[in-house]
Amino acid sequence: MGFDHRKYVAFQPVRKTDRRWPDQVIQQAPTWCAVDLRDGNQALVKPMTVAQKQRLFDLLVKLGFKEIEIGFPAASQPDFDFCRKLIEENRVPDDVRIQVLTQARPELIARTYEALEGAKNAIVHVYNSTSTVQREKVFAMDREGIREIAVNGARIVKAHAEKQPGTNWTFQYSPESFTGTELDFAAEVIDAVNDVWRPDQGQEVIINLPATVEMATPNVFADQIEWICDRVKYREHIQISVHTHNDRGCAVAAAELAVMAGADRVEGTLMGNGERTGNMDLVTMAMNLYSQGIDPTLDLSGMAEITDVVEACTEIQTHPRHPYAGELVFTAFSGSHQDAIRKCLSKYKEGDKWEIAYLPIDPRDLGRRYEEVVRINSQSGKGGVAYVLERDYKISMPRWLQIEFSKVVQQAAETEGGEVDSHTIHRLFEDKYLAVRPEWRLRTYDLHRTDDGVTASIEFGEKERLQLAGEGLGAVEAVAAALERRFGVTLAVEAYEEFALSEGTNANAMACIRIQVDGAPHSAAALAEDTTSATLQALLSAVANHVVAAAPEKARESTA
Amino acid sequence: MGFDHRKYVAFQPVRKTDRRWPDQVIQQAPTWCAVDLRDGNQALVKPMTVAQKQRLFDLLVKLGFKEIEIGFPAASQPDFDFCRKLIEENRVPDDVRIQVLTQARPELIARTYEALEGAKNAIVHVYNSTSTVQREKVFAMDREGIREIAVNGARIVKAHAEKQPGTNWTFQYSPESFTGTELDFAAEVIDAVNDVWRPDQGQEVIINLPATVEMATPNVFADQIEWICDRVKYREHIQISVHTHNDRGCAVAAAELAVMAGADRVEGTLMGNGERTGNMDLVTMAMNLYSQGIDPTLDLSGMAEITDVVEACTEIQTHPRHPYAGELVFTAFSGSHQDAIRKCLSKYKEGDKWEIAYLPIDPRDLGRRYEEVVRINSQSGKGGVAYVLERDYKISMPRWLQIEFSKVVQQAAETEGGEVDSHTIHRLFEDKYLAVRPEWRLRTYDLHRTDDGVTASIEFGEKERLQLAGEGLGAVEAVAAALERRFGVTLAVEAYEEFALSEGTNANAMACIRIQVDGAPHSAAALAEDTTSATLQALLSAVANHVVAAAPEKARESTA
Repeated sequence: MGFDHRKYVAFQPVRKTDRRWPDQVIQQAPTWCAVDLRDGNQALVKPMTVAQKQRLFDLLVKLGFKEIEIGFPAASQPDFDFCRKLIEENRVPDDVRIQVLTQARPELIARTYEALEGAKNAIVHVYNSTSTVQREKVFAMDREGIREIAVNGARIVKAHAEKQPGTNWTFQYSPESFTGTELDFAAEVIDAVNDVWRPDQGQEVIINLPATVEMATPNVFADQIEWICDRVKYREHIQISVHTHNDRGCAVAAAELAVMAGADRVEGTLMGNGERTGNMDLVTMAMNLYSQGIDPTLDLSGMAEITDVVEACTEIQTHPRHPYAGELVFTAFSGSHQDAIRKCLSKYKEGDKWEIAYLPIDPRDLGRRYEEVVRINSQSGKGGVAYVLERDYKISMPRWLQIEFSKVVQQAAETEGGEVDSHTIHRLFEDKYLAVRPEWRLRTYDLHRTDDGVTASIEFGEKERLQLAGEGLGAVEAVAAALERRFGVTLAVEAYEEFALSEGTNANAMACIRIQVDGAPHSAAALAEDTTSATLQALLSAVANHVVAAAPEKARESTA
Repeated sequence: MGFDHRKYVAFQPVRKTDRRWPDQVIQQAPTWCAVDLRDGNQALVKPMTVAQKQRLFDLLVKLGFKEIEIGFPAASQPDFDFCRKLIEENRVPDDVRIQVLTQARPELIARTYEALEGAKNAIVHVYNSTSTVQREKVFAMDREGIREIAVNGARIVKAHAEKQPGTNWTFQYSPESFTGTELDFAAEVIDAVNDVWRPDQGQEVIINLPATVEMATPNVFADQIEWICDRVKYREHIQISVHTHNDRGCAVAAAELAVMAGADRVEGTLMGNGERTGNMDLVTMAMNLYSQGIDPTLDLSGMAEITDVVEACTEIQTHPRHPYAGELVFTAFSGSHQDAIRKCLSKYKEGDKWEIAYLPIDPRDLGRRYEEVVRINSQSGKGGVAYVLERDYKISMPRWLQIEFSKVVQQAAETEGGEVDSHTIHRLFEDKYLAVRPEWRLRTYDLHRTDDGVTASIEFGEKERLQLAGEGLGAVEAVAAALERRFGVTLAVEAYEEFALSEGTNANAMACIRIQVDGAPHSAAALAEDTTSATLQALLSAVANHVVAAAPEKARESTA
């Protein structure tokens, strides 16, 4: 018991002096093989039903997979039946190769070929365990014994294929537990298998190198792959495939570095379902390529459908932070992130290269909406709040109002403790800035410009209307002068902005104003048919805030 | 819209000719810094309450973290309040440094020092964005402007620290969005900051290099880190820290390769909570070290408590395949995996080095039980079934019976479609092999050995007892001869095994037998006080299966 690291042995990497992969950059997608229906399925508490398998198979075909491992028919009757169903009901497109796994044992290989009877294209994937631990503790065999299992398997695979010439056969061999196998022995077994299969004479062969258990940092796996690619016979005639698991959380990294190291093909599953910590996630690796401008050769634009089907078939939910697919992966709550995203998006035009801070991928490419990107809680700042109001309500705010209002929203978020939705933000904005007290509603205005300035008269109020007149350098100053006189206050306009509104709103103009009334700051905003009305209403509302706050009971009287 | 990779630009890695990190192997744990309460918190739909923050902080201390980023007090009142609470209530152990984040702006830095008033040890973490995208699209500034923001921030940080000499200050600078920053510019800014701070004159300094957004394969990040480590001034006087995000699913790999490339310190969060796809998962990286025999300097043995607290504080569930922590990560359903695990575990003794196929870590180290490892469904084989019966019911089966019985279990699993629990497996075993029909229950036996062999007489049945006698080379043969005569059948014993049972069971012995009755195979098992009784009962049960199956109505009569 206890927590003692000393009972573990460090993985011993091969020493390389001719390493080249770190200088490589992936330039094209590898050949993909989806093993959801085999490795994924065998790791489920509740293995898939026939209907679930069919649904997942159809999705994989739709996404563009051309190689799909569909089961281990010799070991499982449901896998056998599903294989027969696909073939007999003609459900495999002509350009798709179905792949089935089998151990390198005569009776299992025979049963495997029975399952594949009548297939157009098929990959027979034969394996045996080669690692030191498996040799010593599980099989009690030496290297020669293990190699002979592989060679015998290869012979039997070849013999059966010759008896079913109607199928276009590809042979695949995996030295299972490859990461725990001495590299020279792995190469020896691979060569021995290929000496039987003779890929140089036209037989299609895949050599698959599984990180059955992830045992070291991913660069070590890349070293192993480069080593094998450099040493095996028939290299130019075979596909080197990798199949990584995620025990150390680095299955995607290991597969990527392996491709840099020479692998041609990658096995994995959608969302990384599979034994223990899962298989390499095909979605993540394919999207990583996509984000670098490389054609992933898969269409992942319907990400919601992908996660829906995977969840329905595996009964495992997608983690909210799952790369590219999780609920939260395009979301920014942080103020500074929101601000940067808002600024970058405002400069982005359809057809531009995608360069948006904090968003490596355009959410729309995966069927997601910008609405999800900026969400507001107590961690958010002015940028996000401004973005949401503009996006959902076409309300633009000057910077000083963004700063002021974001504090209002932050306080609300801190009080509530959770997310503040767009509707609530709008209501807060209305309550704080846009609301007009009936007795302060602007009704009419008259403005007359002379050489000395502007003479303004306004009428405001609901039932009883108040008329005021004043002069100033402009309309705002003139009305301010009238209000100063009427209410016995001193007004100083600090900032105001007025602007036409985007289409699709009832009002045509909006104004925001910030004034000092007897030294106290007040801000207000207003929507109106024209900018002048909006500005004057904003001014009235700001003054009203002060007058009402100063003497709530008297306010009504004093306007009367 | 659409799914078009051509709108993305490939990341341009620096060309390295002096790369050394791929030859490194991590030999010791880096300094850890947990940023759960800052980066983790700012990415939650519902930021943590004070109670949740306190609970998570206490957990981090308990696990052994000595550096904990607790918030961004200048930007968030709750963060400010929490910082004050920790300090004023004396909740920070003397050997723990609390860290707070601030942008490089005078008013925010001032507020930050206010929050830290009275702290014993504190890290002031100041940052500004340095990437090309941020410079051009967000700040509209050139390199010089961005560098000046950093330098001014550094000056102000230093000035404030001098005014609060009661605290042991560490300064930390992050060129935020480092992965998107030209390396020469990043080094220039870092050097400019350190020219202010002068780590060579005794000031403790951390330079943190964030993969704010993960933009390339993890080897590229390692190249960036090695490049910076080689070029920055004062290298021997500063800690180089990395802070990776998981946009490409490779945050752990990037941090690991970065440590190989020279980083001294790693920031991350428990279970990888954080912006978008999350931060580097401290649990995974620490356990990766542990699995290599390296002291992680953290105690992660209480994994259930860790996931409980993280789930309660973040309101995000742990994925069932999360490395080291998920529900399924120690589970094997696959037959061949179960078989290998069973064989390896049977050879494992306390004190041995851990070398178990498919289990990189002993589940018990993390408070998990072997019971979770082997679970049975339709994908499982003889090894798993045998393991479960032996583990939970002390029932050992010979290999031929394992093969036979695993088919029974597999059929039940295929019919049910889900997992078959240990209780159900035992019931299936009882029904199929152990059940004794009352009229076939062995009551007594007499065995007499002479020179010619054994004379046996048995008595069996419930109410009406039947007596039989026969001769043979041994007891089994003698009783078989008697049964042959009595029921007019031909018996051939194919295999039988008897063995004493482990302690803790009612019976002392168990026997399993496989016979041919008139050419049809029948197997049975029996538990009894002694091995002879068990064997004879198994024989009776096997014969009964045939007799009852052949003529169910007559069976009772024929025994009468």
